[in-house]
Amino acid sequence: MTRIYFQAGPTTLPKEVMQQAKEEWDDFQGTGLNIMEHSHRGKDYEDIHEQAKNRMRSLLDIPDTHDVLFLQGGASLQFAMIPMNLIPDGKTAKYILTGSWSEKAYQEAQRIGSSEAVISGKDSAYRTLPVMDYVPSENDAYLHITSNNTIYGTQWPDLNAFSHPTLIADMSSDIMSRPFSVDKYGLIYAGAQKNLGPSGVTAVIIRKDLLQESNAVPSILSYSVHAKNKSLYNTPPVYSIYLLNLVLDWVERSGGVNEMEVRNQKKAKVIYDAIDQSHDFYNGYATPDSRSNMNVTFTLGSKELEQQFIKESEENGIYGLKGHRSVGGFRASIYNAVPQESCDSLATFMVQFQEKYGK
Amino acid sequence: MTRIYFQAGPTTLPKEVMQQAKEEWDDFQGTGLNIMEHSHRGKDYEDIHEQAKNRMRSLLDIPDTHDVLFLQGGASLQFAMIPMNLIPDGKTAKYILTGSWSEKAYQEAQRIGSSEAVISGKDSAYRTLPVMDYVPSENDAYLHITSNNTIYGTQWPDLNAFSHPTLIADMSSDIMSRPFSVDKYGLIYAGAQKNLGPSGVTAVIIRKDLLQESNAVPSILSYSVHAKNKSLYNTPPVYSIYLLNLVLDWVERSGGVNEMEVRNQKKAKVIYDAIDQSHDFYNGYATPDSRSNMNVTFTLGSKELEQQFIKESEENGIYGLKGHRSVGGFRASIYNAVPQESCDSLATFMVQFQEKYGK
Repeated sequence: MTRIYFQAGPTTLPKEVMQQAKEEWDDFQGTGLNIMEHSHRGKDYEDIHEQAKNRMRSLLDIPDTHDVLFLQGGASLQFAMIPMNLIPDGKTAKYILTGSWSEKAYQEAQRIGSSEAVISGKDSAYRTLPVMDYVPSENDAYLHITSNNTIYGTQWPDLNAFSHPTLIADMSSDIMSRPFSVDKYGLIYAGAQKNLGPSGVTAVIIRKDLLQESNAVPSILSYSVHAKNKSLYNTPPVYSIYLLNLVLDWVERSGGVNEMEVRNQKKAKVIYDAIDQSHDFYNGYATPDSRSNMNVTFTLGSKELEQQFIKESEENGIYGLKGHRSVGGFRASIYNAVPQESCDSLATFMVQFQEKYGK
Repeated sequence: MTRIYFQAGPTTLPKEVMQQAKEEWDDFQGTGLNIMEHSHRGKDYEDIHEQAKNRMRSLLDIPDTHDVLFLQGGASLQFAMIPMNLIPDGKTAKYILTGSWSEKAYQEAQRIGSSEAVISGKDSAYRTLPVMDYVPSENDAYLHITSNNTIYGTQWPDLNAFSHPTLIADMSSDIMSRPFSVDKYGLIYAGAQKNLGPSGVTAVIIRKDLLQESNAVPSILSYSVHAKNKSLYNTPPVYSIYLLNLVLDWVERSGGVNEMEVRNQKKAKVIYDAIDQSHDFYNGYATPDSRSNMNVTFTLGSKELEQQFIKESEENGIYGLKGHRSVGGFRASIYNAVPQESCDSLATFMVQFQEKYGK
């Protein structure tokens, strides 16, 4: 039986990407080496590095006002680098809290500089996105949002709806899943391991006026240093960037971010339909207006039933559905590389399970 | 013609490792996924994470007083993390300068805390290791050394010869190449891309008394946070650690670090012999008492001859010999995975080249 997976990340990569990487494994372009065995200063790797950057630019329509960087350390390192680089004296960083990851970003900022949470959805146990009525202040270093909340399964419906002179977004879990205007943002960051590639590389898109030198920031943690060195200040994670480039090539060939959005909406809909048509046998965690097209979260009426659901889903070859411990229940993560057929199979299983155990 | 490579890093991995990774590419242990597509919280990856740590411990005979961490960001991030974590108020970090990488480590420390270069080999243009007569002071936060200097081709001959209460070593380019006593060190770090695996992961060995919590250090940059979370504080570079584990398995099966030392000495000797027996046709850059068994550096009498050497070496399938721009000439990097036959072929080519162009 072919297994299907709904993991929250790291997660499955497109089959075509894995196939191409396998074909090039022993002998990248006639060199007799895998690309990971090449020097990062050699032409073979440099070409890939440039291709990956250019594909990011073209897929997201990134204007010349912004640079693209490939860094290490995941979103967690960005939680620290952002306040280290971007809170000038006398200014305060503002955070919108919509889940555990924005809380973590805010906690790290509090260790580093002046920062404040200005809006929070915590009162709803992060089931629903808060009303976004924040008015920018002159005192703001920046305003930080999280575009998609993996644990709770909520997602801001329109990334163009925000307005702030220095808007920063953690898009780790939904970058490349839908179009938006990069020029509305000062900085965007995303750990690769959902929609961009394997773990080990982080994409950062930064407006060039934010690239300011400072002796107070260690070189390796300075956006300015990485931008000047075209993300080759130190040895990059060569193989992760190689795979990221193949994933972006796959997005391009599949029709770009507009097509990804169409596919993701359709994929999410079949699972949300199974929830909504179950007459409360399945309960969606997120409120309908805040639902994510990347992570579908739901629960069942009892712990026993939930255990049975996991057991039978695995017997049917369906893996990775266990929800985060802070929410319980189930989470189907349906990032770009998850095909429609996997979502159809899950919805079919959900209906069959309800027929068996529902009243 | 089969190519052979002498790159300074990232560099070639053992053939057996690349073969095993290829065999497991599509289907890691019957899961139908590559290991990089697995959750880092799942049992499949956790087993590898533990295996890698245990292999580090057993190969280097790491005592229980020390923890092993796998981090991101390369040695360059360690250049910052070390002073951020390990310079208490009122103390000064001491650095021994033996080349560009120790200079970089020292420069980063200067941005962060009180630090001082106490011994330097710069007067010799880093051709020779300085006399190591530093006497520890109560005021020292730590003493930092670089065990092997890739650009100049020098290497401290005995890693057990140093004595300091908090000795720190950058062993990026020679870890696992020879035995030494870990208990003499407070902290050892190594970017993986020479002897441990591909780029994207950094091994850190740290004495547990140095794991102190501090609110002044961002979580993601705190050794204490990473140790408490067993290097799973954030998503690790899964595939880099998987390959590192396979490389360590290969070192184990090959006979461990003692056998690596025997092999590396023999590999280096054939190339140094070609230099020493050339009657100054080839000139070694490093002085004989400071020579590295990892990077053999040499020059030829003229720029024209050097260009001819690169041209003909590539015609003979020999790649990666160009020296670093700050030294010029040639550098043969012969890390653990480079086989004896490659070194023999290079030495044979050197003799033939001399027969053709020498007086």
